[in-house]
Amino acid sequence: MTKRYYFEDLVPGLTFELGSYTVSREEIIEFASEFDPQPFHLDEKAGKASILGGLASSGWHTASITMRLLALGLLNQSSCQGAPGIEKLQWRKPVFAGDTLSARMEVIAARPLRSRPNLGVVTMRLETRNQHGVPVMTYDNPALFARREVGG
Amino acid sequence: MTKRYYFEDLVPGLTFELGSYTVSREEIIEFASEFDPQPFHLDEKAGKASILGGLASSGWHTASITMRLLALGLLNQSSCQGAPGIEKLQWRKPVFAGDTLSARMEVIAARPLRSRPNLGVVTMRLETRNQHGVPVMTYDNPALFARREVGG
Repeated sequence: MTKRYYFEDLVPGLTFELGSYTVSREEIIEFASEFDPQPFHLDEKAGKASILGGLASSGWHTASITMRLLALGLLNQSSCQGAPGIEKLQWRKPVFAGDTLSARMEVIAARPLRSRPNLGVVTMRLETRNQHGVPVMTYDNPALFARREVGG
Repeated sequence: MTKRYYFEDLVPGLTFELGSYTVSREEIIEFASEFDPQPFHLDEKAGKASILGGLASSGWHTASITMRLLALGLLNQSSCQGAPGIEKLQWRKPVFAGDTLSARMEVIAARPLRSRPNLGVVTMRLETRNQHGVPVMTYDNPALFARREVGG
């Protein structure tokens, strides 16, 4: 796989549009059944009765869909080596069946890693919006990227 | 479903053992194929060549498994109404095929919600360990719980 983006290429201020994904009712229920079996993620009536206002995806499902967009839209063309964590994750609005999610990433920080001179840490700020342009989820994700080397 | 735990019951210092879950190689690859198709989550060789040291689960998979344990082990017997976000999520160690994960929750803060007097915010600290007792993931999760009412 061609690596277009190394640590040095991911400079603060750079943004990437990561594509979109439409979430079906079946997928919402399937994910929730396996990983987040709370009533408002499984059943229309329970969703409507909840503060979510309808059958809504698990927040971890929304995060996983965003990860898919990030991997296919950027990381798989990069020298990414994984990520140590997530900060300030906010589920801002519910995601309902049929919603089309689009993700966008902005590089907000980048620094070489002292303990491993072949790597750098790039902090990515993710924003996932629905088809109305409303942010449904945001988070910051520091991730490790290999540095560009001669012939690398 | 019987609600054993309302906002008032979830006092700081209280801890819950949430059970365990063994992750198979097939599940790791299936989740990654759908949500996090980076080589080190899909292929043994690529995993070994990476800083993870072997085929390792997507961090979002580990988080989703922890969510399953939290829902089945506590939230589905509670008045939980959902969660606005996640703070300080750390993926501390890789999760490999065959690992058995156990999750534990500690209540670290609780306060009534001013804007919605029937709800309170409980901050849950989650720790997921592998079969060697080593923490693989930790995070803080503020979540909304209905307050106990007469007849509620």
